[in-house]
Amino acid sequence: MAVFSAVVEVRLRPGIADPQGATIERALPALGFSGVTGVRAGKSFRFAVQARDAAEARATATALCDRLLANPVIEDSLVTILTED
Amino acid sequence: MAVFSAVVEVRLRPGIADPQGATIERALPALGFSGVTGVRAGKSFRFAVQARDAAEARATATALCDRLLANPVIEDSLVTILTED
Repeated sequence: MAVFSAVVEVRLRPGIADPQGATIERALPALGFSGVTGVRAGKSFRFAVQARDAAEARATATALCDRLLANPVIEDSLVTILTED
Repeated sequence: MAVFSAVVEVRLRPGIADPQGATIERALPALGFSGVTGVRAGKSFRFAVQARDAAEARATATALCDRLLANPVIEDSLVTILTED
């Protein structure tokens, strides 16, 4: 068994209202930022997964997303398996 | 000017207590997940940046992190510039 590092990004599906992102975007001109648009806020998670290979680590991380970290009705999740420690 | 996609991951610095991550980790055995450890929760942001080149887009995104998205006392940020649209 090896230990893999997983990074999960959970983001709202396109079309789902994102008040946090909209609020950030509204604040930008007052801070002197121009040319930044389409701000979307989401969550990120990092954890270590014990698995036989990267495919098994990905399967565990994806199941974890679907069961606990993301709400699949309104959120997408993007799983990245980084390295074998 | 081109438009670049930026992804920012804001995470707690190592050593800073992460109650959200700890709570997720405690819930895992009851959901049937074993071998998942070191859960850390963070935030992710995606936005489009108008800039002359990728270096300028990265500079804008990094400044935005330091001024608005992250609290540099307790948080690290990781900026990725994805593509030229």
